[in-house]
Amino acid sequence: MIRHTVAFRLKHPAGSESEATFLADGQRVLTAIPGVRNFEALEQISAKNSFRHGFSMEFDGQAEYESYNNHPDHVAFVRDRWIPEIDEFLEIDYVAYLPG
Amino acid sequence: MIRHTVAFRLKHPAGSESEATFLADGQRVLTAIPGVRNFEALEQISAKNSFRHGFSMEFDGQAEYESYNNHPDHVAFVRDRWIPEIDEFLEIDYVAYLPG
Repeated sequence: MIRHTVAFRLKHPAGSESEATFLADGQRVLTAIPGVRNFEALEQISAKNSFRHGFSMEFDGQAEYESYNNHPDHVAFVRDRWIPEIDEFLEIDYVAYLPG
Repeated sequence: MIRHTVAFRLKHPAGSESEATFLADGQRVLTAIPGVRNFEALEQISAKNSFRHGFSMEFDGQAEYESYNNHPDHVAFVRDRWIPEIDEFLEIDYVAYLPG
């Protein structure tokens, strides 16, 4: 299992309608892409970084992750919404650590 | 629920015994602190950042999170292991995003 996360800061004012619309649209569009499991829309609350939100989702493996990345709905969302509306972001992807 | 995560890069060589020891000790010490739920030791696999591992844990609320932060075993782990052995890290804390 791969957990794909992205922490981000929108250009929109905190608490604005455009912020809520972006988060709702992201959840709607991305959860409909095959292979996306356990999607979460998150608020980032640590004062130790400047991100304000996050998305987290899980894939069964690398094939499902790549299929998501290349899916036309994901490509369109990145082009039409992510790039215009996001100020800063950081992708962090995790798998379970297996000792030895 | 608060999900506290920290992505990090150890000073130890990848795959080294000192790396494995740090991760095992972190898991053992931190999971024993009251209030820590769903602890995960993680490997970071995205090429889009320079972190190599992560810890993730959940707290029921802010009181449990602060109690963990101030717990002598956490304070000692940060002082004796985290600061000497970690090269770079980023804390990201999430709560569920609730629209409206």
